[in-house]
Amino acid sequence: MHQKSPHSLNHLRIVLVQPTHAGNVGSVARAMRVMGLKQLWIVEPGKERLHRKQDAIALASGAIDVLESIRYVASLPEALADCTLAVAVSAASREFGPPAMPPEPVIDEVFAEIEQTAREVALVFGTERTGLLIEEVAQCQRVISIPGVSDYHSLNLSQAVQLICYLARRRALAGSDPALDVVRAHETQPEFPQPEPATLGAIEGLMEHLEQALVAIDYLDPEHPKKLMPRMRRLVARSRLEAEEVHLLRGICKKMLQAAERAAAVSKREA
Amino acid sequence: MHQKSPHSLNHLRIVLVQPTHAGNVGSVARAMRVMGLKQLWIVEPGKERLHRKQDAIALASGAIDVLESIRYVASLPEALADCTLAVAVSAASREFGPPAMPPEPVIDEVFAEIEQTAREVALVFGTERTGLLIEEVAQCQRVISIPGVSDYHSLNLSQAVQLICYLARRRALAGSDPALDVVRAHETQPEFPQPEPATLGAIEGLMEHLEQALVAIDYLDPEHPKKLMPRMRRLVARSRLEAEEVHLLRGICKKMLQAAERAAAVSKREA
Repeated sequence: MHQKSPHSLNHLRIVLVQPTHAGNVGSVARAMRVMGLKQLWIVEPGKERLHRKQDAIALASGAIDVLESIRYVASLPEALADCTLAVAVSAASREFGPPAMPPEPVIDEVFAEIEQTAREVALVFGTERTGLLIEEVAQCQRVISIPGVSDYHSLNLSQAVQLICYLARRRALAGSDPALDVVRAHETQPEFPQPEPATLGAIEGLMEHLEQALVAIDYLDPEHPKKLMPRMRRLVARSRLEAEEVHLLRGICKKMLQAAERAAAVSKREA
Repeated sequence: MHQKSPHSLNHLRIVLVQPTHAGNVGSVARAMRVMGLKQLWIVEPGKERLHRKQDAIALASGAIDVLESIRYVASLPEALADCTLAVAVSAASREFGPPAMPPEPVIDEVFAEIEQTAREVALVFGTERTGLLIEEVAQCQRVISIPGVSDYHSLNLSQAVQLICYLARRRALAGSDPALDVVRAHETQPEFPQPEPATLGAIEGLMEHLEQALVAIDYLDPEHPKKLMPRMRRLVARSRLEAEEVHLLRGICKKMLQAAERAAAVSKREA
């Protein structure tokens, strides 16, 4: 029943956004370890290094290798920069995020992505009490909501990680099922070269550039931004941009900024 | 995403054989509660009533109804007496027990049993450190072993219960067709009104507007259009725009055209 871990699991990154209990970090390490996942990143803008606390070590129950290789970063974009896909795990659907889905179809998509690109995919979990913020979900392209009863939805952080890691492991192993391989042999070898997906870092760069351009052409009022950028993010997240497309869209932003600059020069002279 | 619990879940009984940590009993109650299971039985030949301890109450996180309806019995046979099927959840296969299987097919069988008999089915978990004894496994008709990595198999009691309860809930909701489950989870009570999709006519209007704007800001050369517009079309097609988004993007096109017009006025005067 216990097997070696398929290589694809190494491309899965668990990202915890500001966990507050060291014990939960330990339990998460254990939950990952038993399912063969290794990459744990923690978004912690402060100096807290939870994995060194006694509770973390106790609850990791021997998964010290996972604890000790934790990467701490100051912001969520930093944790996602080299990933091609980020999945938020969130109790509730958010108005401006991608629509929430049950875990199984999203995990299917995650492994399809890893098999195709061999790049990193992030699974993002929010802080214990409140979960992910709207703007954190907005940085992800998919949202998983774990189904549960409607009158009580209290899934502990490490329990949520355990469920997702289990489903990921099952999916990864199913991928190496010889019966499936036959099917896959037919499906692979695309007739055209696959486009290269944009990294989330590149997409962040685009969003900043776009925001500047929209301010410059006087469409976005920085004093009253309303929901414009969250809406643009949601659209971009759903589109799963390619590297080439980011390049193209940044070209448009650049030209918008130039046109706006020249237009501003007129207004100045006229004033 | 969150639904009422199907009645079949009421027939599932979680049986813990001599748990030693009150905190684990609380975490098990919580894990069950969130997936809609209610029957928790504890085999405890002594007088310990773990659910009354502070750790149990703290870790149950509100699942007090499950804690308070715990049934204590003195022996495993007593916990299984009115069941028609007992499933051991055990890390390792035992020489004299039934062969260990992964959870999914066993859970299928459990629900087939419940649907047919409307009787109780027990899922039996051993004590934390050592798991179920050979003679305890021998009282069960099926054995589930949760797949994990071979060099580290340390699944916390409540994590194991959480995984099994999740799979049970998914199976119970799916009825007899797991494929339906995914569909159903998508369909249930979206928390926000579904956005209105853009018509293809609206998208055509947007593409024309965009082309004009790109020419105006000097990004698209009408003499040498290259593949720019086909690329933009491909991106837009993939994004499945909503009506609201078309509106927003046309607003941007309009502002681009205005900025470009004013910029062109400068060039004219300068020429």
